[in-house]
Amino acid sequence: MHLSRETKRLEGKTPKEDDLTRISSTWTPAGLSGSGKSTVACTLEHALAARGKVTVLLDGDNVRHGLNSNLGFKAEDREENIRRIGEVSKLFAESGVITLTSFISPYRADRAKVRERMAKGDFLEVYMRIPIEICEERDPKGLYKAARAGKIKNFTGIDDPYEEPENPEITLNAKDEEGNMASAEDMAAEIIKYLDSNTYLRGP
Amino acid sequence: MHLSRETKRLEGKTPKEDDLTRISSTWTPAGLSGSGKSTVACTLEHALAARGKVTVLLDGDNVRHGLNSNLGFKAEDREENIRRIGEVSKLFAESGVITLTSFISPYRADRAKVRERMAKGDFLEVYMRIPIEICEERDPKGLYKAARAGKIKNFTGIDDPYEEPENPEITLNAKDEEGNMASAEDMAAEIIKYLDSNTYLRGP
Repeated sequence: MHLSRETKRLEGKTPKEDDLTRISSTWTPAGLSGSGKSTVACTLEHALAARGKVTVLLDGDNVRHGLNSNLGFKAEDREENIRRIGEVSKLFAESGVITLTSFISPYRADRAKVRERMAKGDFLEVYMRIPIEICEERDPKGLYKAARAGKIKNFTGIDDPYEEPENPEITLNAKDEEGNMASAEDMAAEIIKYLDSNTYLRGP
Repeated sequence: MHLSRETKRLEGKTPKEDDLTRISSTWTPAGLSGSGKSTVACTLEHALAARGKVTVLLDGDNVRHGLNSNLGFKAEDREENIRRIGEVSKLFAESGVITLTSFISPYRADRAKVRERMAKGDFLEVYMRIPIEICEERDPKGLYKAARAGKIKNFTGIDDPYEEPENPEITLNAKDEEGNMASAEDMAAEIIKYLDSNTYLRGP
């Protein structure tokens, strides 16, 4: 039976460690624009749905147009953007929903702050280590082209830094050991494998 | 099988009207401090959990200390507080989670803005019509006492207005027709009755 942590708290109960923590995490693909974050997140959601898990996918489209519609792209707005996403993910995690967040989140410090706010094990950093050359060749939204032409300023990877995760729980590479390009299905499968072997997917 | 609306959108699918809308709503008990909003919300969550529904309870404690920790109690902060709660509720609703929000939300205009942002039928206003005399007698947190003593300013119902909902979907009264005090269980049952008769609880 599903009860949110807030109800348990109001009723003076302490959720058991295994009760919700292990089924309610935030998995954050971090990576450049065009690295395939959202595609992998979608593929992963299907795999989780097939196993009966309740998930939510947060990305620029549903967050920037809603909750964070009053934020711009200045440094302090970017920080507040990631802070709010972290807090919303925390609320989802506490209600037992697996949150897949798909944001570039270029700065190490901002990601670290989100991690600190979450319960241990509730935050998994998935680093999409896709070389910028591949991302730029894909350029699904034409953003690299616009950034190279100077039409977009402060674009991550071009004229704004991308700080690589230092200790991500999962790193996904563009190619496998034999040099074949990894598909979104391969990457989602790798995440599922990690989750299974770390008992994230047991329980209801 | 559960898929969030964002994944469906990214994959170019239009969620069917009945697909998530009817199982994923925001039910907002509005009422004075001490009217029993959180108690009814907890009781309701138990009843919904018993029917296999996934719920989240948002209230001052988990929202004010997290997402909205950078907001105070000035008029514009109160407005931003309710706006963010509305947007978070929308994200929950879109992921198929029933959101119970328990906030005084004293101003009609702020509640109306939240309603406008939600899909039709996704926002249900539950008005706890409990006379202030009863709330003040209960005074579980000693807030009325502090407000009467002038230690808290702009306290809703004392020196700040509470604008009654004009067309709430559900109104819960302190006493039943025979003059008996309604319990939290009675009130939760009344909400469930409304949800059942309006087909909110069918489906997975």
